[in-house]
Amino acid sequence: MTQNAQMNGQRWFRHELRVRYQETDQMGVVYHANYLNYFEIGRTELIRRIGMPYRQFEERGLLLPVVETELKFRLPARYDDRIAVFTMIEELNGLRIHFAYEVRRLPSDLPAAESSDDRSQARNAVLNVSAAMEPEGELLTSGRTKHVWLNRAWKPVRIDREAPDLYQLLQS
Amino acid sequence: MTQNAQMNGQRWFRHELRVRYQETDQMGVVYHANYLNYFEIGRTELIRRIGMPYRQFEERGLLLPVVETELKFRLPARYDDRIAVFTMIEELNGLRIHFAYEVRRLPSDLPAAESSDDRSQARNAVLNVSAAMEPEGELLTSGRTKHVWLNRAWKPVRIDREAPDLYQLLQS
Amino acid sequence: MTQNAQMNGQRWFRHELRVRYQETDQMGVVYHANYLNYFEIGRTELIRRIGMPYRQFEERGLLLPVVETELKFRLPARYDDRIAVFTMIEELNGLRIHFAYEVRRLPSDLPAAESSDDRSQARNAVLNVSAAMEPEGELLTSGRTKHVWLNRAWKPVRIDREAPDLYQLLQS
Amino acid sequence: MTQNAQMNGQRWFRHELRVRYQETDQMGVVYHANYLNYFEIGRTELIRRIGMPYRQFEERGLLLPVVETELKFRLPARYDDRIAVFTMIEELNGLRIHFAYEVRRLPSDLPAAESSDDRSQARNAVLNVSAAMEPEGELLTSGRTKHVWLNRAWKPVRIDREAPDLYQLLQS
Repeated sequence: MTQNAQMNGQRWFRHELRVRYQETDQMGVVYHANYLNYFEIGRTELIRRIGMPYRQFEERGLLLPVVETELKFRLPARYDDRIAVFTMIEELNGLRIHFAYEVRRLPSDLPAAESSDDRSQARNAVLNVSAAMEPEGELLTSGRTKHVWLNRAWKPVRIDREAPDLYQLLQS
Repeated sequence: MTQNAQMNGQRWFRHELRVRYQETDQMGVVYHANYLNYFEIGRTELIRRIGMPYRQFEERGLLLPVVETELKFRLPARYDDRIAVFTMIEELNGLRIHFAYEVRRLPSDLPAAESSDDRSQARNAVLNVSAAMEPEGELLTSGRTKHVWLNRAWKPVRIDREAPDLYQLLQS
Repeated sequence: MTQNAQMNGQRWFRHELRVRYQETDQMGVVYHANYLNYFEIGRTELIRRIGMPYRQFEERGLLLPVVETELKFRLPARYDDRIAVFTMIEELNGLRIHFAYEVRRLPSDLPAAESSDDRSQARNAVLNVSAAMEPEGELLTSGRTKHVWLNRAWKPVRIDREAPDLYQLLQS
Repeated sequence: MTQNAQMNGQRWFRHELRVRYQETDQMGVVYHANYLNYFEIGRTELIRRIGMPYRQFEERGLLLPVVETELKFRLPARYDDRIAVFTMIEELNGLRIHFAYEVRRLPSDLPAAESSDDRSQARNAVLNVSAAMEPEGELLTSGRTKHVWLNRAWKPVRIDREAPDLYQLLQS
């Protein structure tokens, strides 16, 4: 199911979206704050793919708030554009995790699986996540988010001690 | 501080807002779902004015979710418009509460207190809430929301028994 | 406005979504205004399926604002729930169009196409829209939206005269 | 990263807000993307105070999109908190403008003008903007946004040539 996509040993995970009407503003483009939402969706789907939905983090009392972020806006996304969020784990240790992102406009409106008989690829498309060698499409926005692990009392925790199973999944 | 504004014994409470850029969409007007947010702000400020911030409801384990709503959109609000949300308690008993709303565009960009030396009016304006005899301005959207009282377990409760102090405030 | 619609040759169109973190509020459920956004996504995908993306409406100078809506909230959706928006055209004439909606929680996290070899079904899943005789899953919210056709100057137009091709697509 | 900030005659502009229910997420705090919206409100009110509402920029064909941003999240804002957005022009030339921001929680629920008879202060409070030497309150989030001036065709323009009146207002 995975194609071992790598870039310097790192992998980009790809998640496809369609721009919603509500996400536009009167400039006729996606309101800039929505890219932070796209980033969130990107890392959520990356973590799901790794094998543990983020929902389970919170059920186990682990929170992963953003402590720092930066974004560069190059080109605007527009209503109904098919875009992909590419997400990568940039740094990981017991205390923190950093993600990098690229939001790109996909070249056409044809779904990827359209041209393929491959059932597993169709399944990936259904899951709407796939690993890719290189981010494709026109670069719209890039950025990163930095997170720390907190417990329910909003105190920092070491994930490698609190949830070693989870830590291993993220490392792999 | 209050002017006993009434309409059939009911009072409209007035809360002023300015339309945010994020609230617009590519049609150049406020995205329609935002009026439900304006309604929420209207009833929040009405309840604050009555004497108990909604935050305290939740701290006491009372939730007040919307179970039904309807909206009529007449004219669009636009970016940076000064609008007022007029809110009224339409029905109240131990099990439920219904609110009615009107969102109106204010006639000009001059704040109301501008033309007045009256300190208590200035204070009302500071609080950004005031009671008014009749809703003023151009009608944009009207609607209502119906709510039931729930406890933390999302079970219905009778507010007149669970929180008689609160019930009395709402009746007054 | 009419009940028993679907039995009369009407079809529900189904579009699947996953609840986003941003869509939750501190009650731990989807903030109620977001259902209007889900409705919008439902009708957008229905119209795309019919053969003309809503984007093309606006490019041709046709706007389709909501003039009236009503919603009933039965059960809350929660973060990361897989939900489906079921959308149906309830009424259509040259001046107006009404849609009905049901938002339902899907029974499990297994994508529908998982259990099928059928390529066209996989394609539907890729398109993330499918026609269904009966809405499946746990009913969360239902409602309707009423729209009128406007031109760029926000004046009512008769779609059957302005865009007969489009009108025919919608009727079919 | 900091250049000649507030100590050199620069002023923080202060705009007060109340956290909306919709802005919270299931962690019980303000969803992080909303701070970009607060920043926008901060610079909008700063520009209004200077003497030209941002709406007029767009009416004159000038757009001011964000090209880069960074945020540091220190403490979370919560529902119904009274917060203030402090905004400052950090850099300005004919091609670009950078703003710095601090979002702070205000110490109490008493409006500032409460303790004052001064009508002009009441007016400021009504306008909900005031100039302050030093940001007050508990620091929640800080950041900056960088913008370029564009015309309607999304091409860069020199504001000092296109709109010298505006440029002078911003410099003053």
